Amino acid sequence: MSSTAGQVICCKAAVAWEAGKPLVIEEVELAPPQAMEVRLKILLTSLCHTDVYFWEAKGQTPLFPRIFGHEAGGIVESVGEGVTDLKPGDHVLPVFTGECKECLHCKSEESNMCDLLRINTDRGVMLNDGKSRFSIRGQPIYHFVGTSTFSEYTVVHVGCVAKINPAAPLDKVCVLSCGISTGLGATLNVAKPQKGSSVAIFGLGAVGLAAAEGARIAGASRIIGVDLNSHRFDEAKKFGVTEFVNPKDHNKPVQEVIAEMTNGGVDRSVECTGSINAMISAFECVHDGWGVAVLVGVPNKDDSFKTHPMNVLNERTLKGTFFGNYKPRSDLPSVVEKYMNKELELEKFITHEVPFSEINKAFEYMLSGAGLRCIIRMGA
Amino acid sequence: MSSTAGQVICCKAAVAWEAGKPLVIEEVELAPPQAMEVRLKILLTSLCHTDVYFWEAKGQTPLFPRIFGHEAGGIVESVGEGVTDLKPGDHVLPVFTGECKECLHCKSEESNMCDLLRINTDRGVMLNDGKSRFSIRGQPIYHFVGTSTFSEYTVVHVGCVAKINPAAPLDKVCVLSCGISTGLGATLNVAKPQKGSSVAIFGLGAVGLAAAEGARIAGASRIIGVDLNSHRFDEAKKFGVTEFVNPKDHNKPVQEVIAEMTNGGVDRSVECTGSINAMISAFECVHDGWGVAVLVGVPNKDDSFKTHPMNVLNERTLKGTFFGNYKPRSDLPSVVEKYMNKELELEKFITHEVPFSEINKAFEYMLSGAGLRCIIRMGA
Repeated sequence: MSSTAGQVICCKAAVAWEAGKPLVIEEVELAPPQAMEVRLKILLTSLCHTDVYFWEAKGQTPLFPRIFGHEAGGIVESVGEGVTDLKPGDHVLPVFTGECKECLHCKSEESNMCDLLRINTDRGVMLNDGKSRFSIRGQPIYHFVGTSTFSEYTVVHVGCVAKINPAAPLDKVCVLSCGISTGLGATLNVAKPQKGSSVAIFGLGAVGLAAAEGARIAGASRIIGVDLNSHRFDEAKKFGVTEFVNPKDHNKPVQEVIAEMTNGGVDRSVECTGSINAMISAFECVHDGWGVAVLVGVPNKDDSFKTHPMNVLNERTLKGTFFGNYKPRSDLPSVVEKYMNKELELEKFITHEVPFSEINKAFEYMLSGAGLRCIIRMGA
Repeated sequence: MSSTAGQVICCKAAVAWEAGKPLVIEEVELAPPQAMEVRLKILLTSLCHTDVYFWEAKGQTPLFPRIFGHEAGGIVESVGEGVTDLKPGDHVLPVFTGECKECLHCKSEESNMCDLLRINTDRGVMLNDGKSRFSIRGQPIYHFVGTSTFSEYTVVHVGCVAKINPAAPLDKVCVLSCGISTGLGATLNVAKPQKGSSVAIFGLGAVGLAAAEGARIAGASRIIGVDLNSHRFDEAKKFGVTEFVNPKDHNKPVQEVIAEMTNGGVDRSVECTGSINAMISAFECVHDGWGVAVLVGVPNKDDSFKTHPMNVLNERTLKGTFFGNYKPRSDLPSVVEKYMNKELELEKFITHEVPFSEINKAFEYMLSGAGLRCIIRMGA
């Protein structure tokens, strides 16, 4: 039992006071974990587009002050009532979506969309009592997707915590708690390309490159990267991308370009942009008879996916995935093992690192499109 | 070798001289099979919507005079050059789509959309020489989908002929050469419902009821039939349908009605109407996390399948199928065996029978919506 167990912890957190304004490192108070909750010491966190999206709060309901952050690695400090499968000292990855192990989704082999703990970006409080565990000078600070890892300590529902191999370096595997697993799983768990097959990846950001890494691991022989930014191709080669198509270079739809390159279409495609046109292209560029397209990117509220139904009837498959179909608690430990046994490379995703005190730099890197993942080291 | 091998055969055929006009039983001449062709003696044929659709020729390029018919059972009379796996006397089902066993699709385990012999409704001639084998008083008569089974004899490409168990009664298994296999395979090969699961079937014609039969065979515990004609429900019970929804009885979309009946959606759905609205409903009525919707019905040329991409991202799968994903030569013999071992019931699909001389009655039954399949007995 740690000496802080059961006590309020005072620690540093990066508080977003207002939409789009730089985070402020503040001394905050963090209550102990309640029933089925776990308090974590965060050692490393990284920045994902979703943090930036809700921090900008363009369109979503603004919820401030808030502590963002959901890609992270840490150690269990203490556990609340009823928590039996985690103990202080366990190495963990907090995850923005959960696995209660009791609902129909958790009991289904095919789904990871837990009824209880499915991502909820509008909720800024803990499930147990509908309140926040964070406060500053008596004022509550909202949580973000149940993780709020831009803090030295945080409280998370036990269902949103994956216990991993303690030998795994947290400054590498922390990136598995969101984007990288999302892209990797989209390919390995959903698209499932066969060895020697062709795969098109739409969007060569971190998620798309993780999808490409999945295709490389699966032994795909052609990995076609599609992006509006041709500068991304050089970087993409490190992730197994063998060919590049910039839709802007062609005066016909990119699905036609890809069909011509591949004698009728790719075997698999993975869409990681969130653009509705890319989603439609990703579907229509797979081969009839056996092609499978997987949608990963989050669309806009008013988007409509449109295609001629014959594209479906000609034996194409359209699937969507959420967090790469990984069940956070059951499956993430094995993804960490893929890194440990050198099957999966993570170093190439980590292009920047900043101390916690300079967390706003990570936002600047992402907003300027520089690099893939910026690691934020908490102790520093 | 039969005494007719190598000779022109004079036989009776039901010739469609004009769009929508009654067929005329004529004495026609049928040339011997050329390379990779087989000449069949047709014993039984049945009428499918597709025959009627192209006979009506509303919208399609009219191709007359033509001999329709593609659901049938017969016996090999003689074989052309290069045919090694069929011989005179073999019992066979001719099929409107083929399996060359050489192309990428035939070599793929997932596809049955043979490049060489895929259905082509616009072609009225044989592949080998681009000519018809049928003629009347010297005038060629067009073939239909490579089968033209409304004739006592016909010539078919060897890739469109499934050799079956000679003990199988052709007056039952002949219906497996199109619609029944299409619906059955959509469920068994593509939707693949698990035992105890829920399945919605859109459209309770012969194809939809065959899809229901597939769900019954797979052990689905709830089979929800959806049709605009409530009179179809009684018949549908024989095919395992347990519940019925008529979209006209509700003032909300049928996908919402089904979601309410099933705590969020069915596990699988199979769309057998060809209506674009039914296709969208069939997709949106499956459960998030694991639901799979399979499209079977042929849409109109100008249809557009539209859905919000979040319906896909929430881990639903949309698939299309053609001929139930059965490879005609490789897989149909095993469907016949399902009937032989009483796993699959076919009698309930056969609601009418007429002698060949009264073939126009079969058209009348179908146009009036009476029954499911009308068997046409050639000798009679």
